[in-house]
Amino acid sequence: MSYLHLFEQHETSLNKAIDAIRSRIFHAHWPEPPSGKIYGETAQEDGLHAFKTSLNSTFEFLQNGSSGTVGSEQSPYGFPLNITYPAYSADVLIANAQSALIEWKQLSTKERAGILIECLERASKHFFAIGFSTMHTTGQGFIMAFQASGPHAFDRALESIATGYMAIDAFADSVQWTKPMGKMQVDLKKTFHIRPKGINLTIGCSTFPIWNSFPGMFASLITGNVTIAKTHPSAILPIAICIRSFQETLVDLGVNPHVIQIAIDETSKPITLELAQRSEITTIDYTGSSSFGNHLEQVLQRSHTELFTEKAGVNCALIGEVDSLDAVLDNLAFSLSLYSGQMCTTPQNIYVPKEGVKTSEGIITFDDVCGKLKEKVDALVFNEKMGPGTLGALHSPAVQSRVEKAQSSGLDIIRESASVQQQGFDNALSCSPLILKATSSDQAILHEEWFGPISFIIPVDSIQDGISAMAESVEKHGALTTLLYVQSEEYLSLAEEKLIDAGVHISFNLTGPIWVNQSAAFSDFHGAGANPAGNASFADLSFVSKRFNVIGIRKP
Amino acid sequence: MSYLHLFEQHETSLNKAIDAIRSRIFHAHWPEPPSGKIYGETAQEDGLHAFKTSLNSTFEFLQNGSSGTVGSEQSPYGFPLNITYPAYSADVLIANAQSALIEWKQLSTKERAGILIECLERASKHFFAIGFSTMHTTGQGFIMAFQASGPHAFDRALESIATGYMAIDAFADSVQWTKPMGKMQVDLKKTFHIRPKGINLTIGCSTFPIWNSFPGMFASLITGNVTIAKTHPSAILPIAICIRSFQETLVDLGVNPHVIQIAIDETSKPITLELAQRSEITTIDYTGSSSFGNHLEQVLQRSHTELFTEKAGVNCALIGEVDSLDAVLDNLAFSLSLYSGQMCTTPQNIYVPKEGVKTSEGIITFDDVCGKLKEKVDALVFNEKMGPGTLGALHSPAVQSRVEKAQSSGLDIIRESASVQQQGFDNALSCSPLILKATSSDQAILHEEWFGPISFIIPVDSIQDGISAMAESVEKHGALTTLLYVQSEEYLSLAEEKLIDAGVHISFNLTGPIWVNQSAAFSDFHGAGANPAGNASFADLSFVSKRFNVIGIRKP
Repeated sequence: MSYLHLFEQHETSLNKAIDAIRSRIFHAHWPEPPSGKIYGETAQEDGLHAFKTSLNSTFEFLQNGSSGTVGSEQSPYGFPLNITYPAYSADVLIANAQSALIEWKQLSTKERAGILIECLERASKHFFAIGFSTMHTTGQGFIMAFQASGPHAFDRALESIATGYMAIDAFADSVQWTKPMGKMQVDLKKTFHIRPKGINLTIGCSTFPIWNSFPGMFASLITGNVTIAKTHPSAILPIAICIRSFQETLVDLGVNPHVIQIAIDETSKPITLELAQRSEITTIDYTGSSSFGNHLEQVLQRSHTELFTEKAGVNCALIGEVDSLDAVLDNLAFSLSLYSGQMCTTPQNIYVPKEGVKTSEGIITFDDVCGKLKEKVDALVFNEKMGPGTLGALHSPAVQSRVEKAQSSGLDIIRESASVQQQGFDNALSCSPLILKATSSDQAILHEEWFGPISFIIPVDSIQDGISAMAESVEKHGALTTLLYVQSEEYLSLAEEKLIDAGVHISFNLTGPIWVNQSAAFSDFHGAGANPAGNASFADLSFVSKRFNVIGIRKP
Repeated sequence: MSYLHLFEQHETSLNKAIDAIRSRIFHAHWPEPPSGKIYGETAQEDGLHAFKTSLNSTFEFLQNGSSGTVGSEQSPYGFPLNITYPAYSADVLIANAQSALIEWKQLSTKERAGILIECLERASKHFFAIGFSTMHTTGQGFIMAFQASGPHAFDRALESIATGYMAIDAFADSVQWTKPMGKMQVDLKKTFHIRPKGINLTIGCSTFPIWNSFPGMFASLITGNVTIAKTHPSAILPIAICIRSFQETLVDLGVNPHVIQIAIDETSKPITLELAQRSEITTIDYTGSSSFGNHLEQVLQRSHTELFTEKAGVNCALIGEVDSLDAVLDNLAFSLSLYSGQMCTTPQNIYVPKEGVKTSEGIITFDDVCGKLKEKVDALVFNEKMGPGTLGALHSPAVQSRVEKAQSSGLDIIRESASVQQQGFDNALSCSPLILKATSSDQAILHEEWFGPISFIIPVDSIQDGISAMAESVEKHGALTTLLYVQSEEYLSLAEEKLIDAGVHISFNLTGPIWVNQSAAFSDFHGAGANPAGNASFADLSFVSKRFNVIGIRKP
């Protein structure tokens, strides 16, 4: 059976994605607005209904060999999901994967691309259910949940498929090779075969269960590997909906559904380390805390497992020279508030010259900058229309404890955190941004990631010193993002030089509806792979090419 | 200062290389015949003169900070070279590299490509001197020495440059990004910067001091890294000539010569491990024994150094079904004899069905196949015109000891090894191929690499069993090459399936002037990176893309 018809069906989508990846232009295969005009007038209602139907029930997959059940998800908006999922042992998952690998790796790259894009297209019909599930497992506001787990995550998946396709397509898969040798010649028919590394394990995180998992899964799949998505025990449902849909599509197409499996555990009985250490697992994608990531690196030191990581970092910002401070602080206030700072890309340490910030209206003092940032956050958070949806809820009580710990750290408080009412969800766990004033001597605090709505404003002697402090922090503690507000050529160049050296992506002078937290598929590389926050980048060539080898065959 | 004129000058060469790499067609930028018509009528004589002039003298580089001298090379043809080289400490090498890196990484990829190809073009004027130096350090016969260290190695360097260029060129380096948002839009100017990993260390081997070193060096250089070539103490001169020439070119162009450095030590006072463990070294290319390679892997386990390896393997062959056994054994005899089996690609374990080999003239018994292979090797080795030049000399007395050890292992001897007279070099260390008969029960012997002119013929119950034995051997002990003589579709498919799974390149039914030992730049990947013989492949995308990261910068 051939799947080339699926390739033909999706070839235009693939080529548009490849064009965007090459040129880095804006591209969105799936539109981001959760709009009825795009997704159907009843799509939101249907999605909510599907989400509600899945509560208090048992979730099924087309995946063999379950033993027992797991599941104890809790909505951050204050109620238990009461969903039970089948549990699968490491032995079963690996046996399933091994058998699925046999046929999957035999398919051509074109066939795999066709099948995978078909899987995504069909699963995209569930965007609204996925959005509500993401909201009620991660705590994201609905619009963000819809976008991050729906169109944005699916675009990242398509990006991985397209990048893997490009990497394989870089070289011909066969050639008639003729070597002239004086009056003779040698002729060889050469073919080149993509040999996947084998079984991929993608270890998901609690805050972006789909967006952070799809890149590794689909980069693995397009290059001939099969994948096991290990979900975070607190955020199972969103990716469970996707994987059930993928498995239905695979079965419908006559492909072994175990090409894409789910692995679910409970916090009390984790299986991640057991799976990760199995020799049959050849590549691992990990998103999560640095402590578990470092532990993984250590236990895998002696193995040949290829480990792709996105661990934690300390994102830095600098406000030095601005045109309009209002526009800058509007932007920054939103970045600090969005999903209550629970993004790996949210700024944490904000450097401001102690002499104040140069603006088109003169210097604004350090204290005034702090005060104005507080006002901007207040204005957003207390805006009943905007605030609650922007903040969302805390994905875990641990974030609240962290806010309390920071609030009682002894540092001057610029803005106190307080709970924010989430309409209709009286028990939602919600904290508005806490902003503290630190000094360079508070290194123990500043060099730690305070995941959640916690940021620090740090006075520096000069813009130059601020840039140096950022570069040093990135080199030592890693970062996913940096954000700088400087105007003069001197500082722009200095920042570029120092921060490229430090190995981190840079955003300058963002105002208006574009935020440092955002990373756009097809255009922005997510993660640089060049600092302690992780070795992987969505999706550079290294992210895909380490997942396969090329085997050459020569025949006369 | 811009170097774009050099890019323009070499753009056609680069594009032809890229075209060949993409299509895998035959391509040679530098012709392989050591012919006066190509390289100048006096080129050979001049090269020999240059080689002789360098004997008994002191070799100089354009490299700062030497302390003391080293050098005790010995020609395998029986005389000492008496060349002393400057020694450089790890501290000096790293300080030099760090300062050179500052400007090198700022150049554009086009500029680096232009400069590097110019370096190669100028150094290629020394092909004959490099050839004689290679002959008198490695023991290779002259023609092979010329080709392997001259055109073939330089083609591999050009291949690495072109592959690195392709990988970087896969994505735009800037874009005006416009995101439509209903009635608004967001505009960002994005630029993408290549951030090299830093300083590369390339650890060379004693048998192919240039061919095995250039790929890693030039893949590192094109992607913005600087490189330190650590030579094997017994084969310094060939690459020393290249590096002096490169440094002269760099200085002439106004580039810091420490972009490409040499590191030389003595066996009694090695510096490789010290260098490899320095945190400033970020990528290492290693070619050599598995024992030192495994040790390197172990000491680097906790570091973030990216290690590319080509270690040893056990190459396997199978003679099952042939058209003409004479043609097959002519080919195999040459492969076993070429450079006295001292190639990482030479077959070692040769499986033959115990019932004999099917030929177009009927079955030929196992014993007759062994006897005929002996005759073919005799005919080549005792051919005064062909034999000595094909065999060359043993690069080290350790190889001779290994031959003696194998000869007294108790296995049946199919062909005894004996020294072969090298015209004009009475003290040359030379051994003709030893061929032994082993059985599957001699696993301890068969699963070891017997580097040198040593091979084993092993009877198997069937062609199928032979294929299984090869696959198992590759999986457990690694291999650079496999060679099979089978005709029926059934066995061709089975071998492809099993050996692709095992992760090794395959050659079928080679006869005539093309041998399994050969790996053609631009077309054949050398090393699969998929079995215990090493993780690197010259030059797939992974070989280049792991040497840099991409840093994105966004500005309104």
